[in-house]
Amino acid sequence: MNAFGKAIKVKRVEIGLTQEDLAEQSGLARSFVSGVERGEAKATIISVWKIAKGLKCLPSELWLVAERLNSTQTLNKKR
Amino acid sequence: MNAFGKAIKVKRVEIGLTQEDLAEQSGLARSFVSGVERGEAKATIISVWKIAKGLKCLPSELWLVAERLNSTQTLNKKR
Repeated sequence: MNAFGKAIKVKRVEIGLTQEDLAEQSGLARSFVSGVERGEAKATIISVWKIAKGLKCLPSELWLVAERLNSTQTLNKKR
Repeated sequence: MNAFGKAIKVKRVEIGLTQEDLAEQSGLARSFVSGVERGEAKATIISVWKIAKGLKCLPSELWLVAERLNSTQTLNKKR
């Protein structure tokens, strides 16, 4: 169920940011960004807005990536 | 900044659910659902997945509504 964290990493790498860069641009701690990506830190709605802003995209775009990752994960389990 | 809470209410009313119904279908407490709608409770990514499931939609659909509400809010401030 850590599709959202993985979606952040996909988008972050896509635009060539390090976790440090993203933390700075979203006003969050690097350790928090790292924890959310690994699914170990609980991001709230407020941090979703901040992370999306740091990635220069809309939250809905991040969630679309997460949903795609989630459905691929579910498919792989069925095989 | 409570556009996401408002988006939940918009979707919930659209499909004719009470907060009680949504709480039951998302496995969350009614008081929590009510708090999130009013922007007073902090929903995490996990509860976003649960609420979207309770509303029988994808999280990205909820966030699209929130983004629309957010940009309308911003426009009204500029007038």
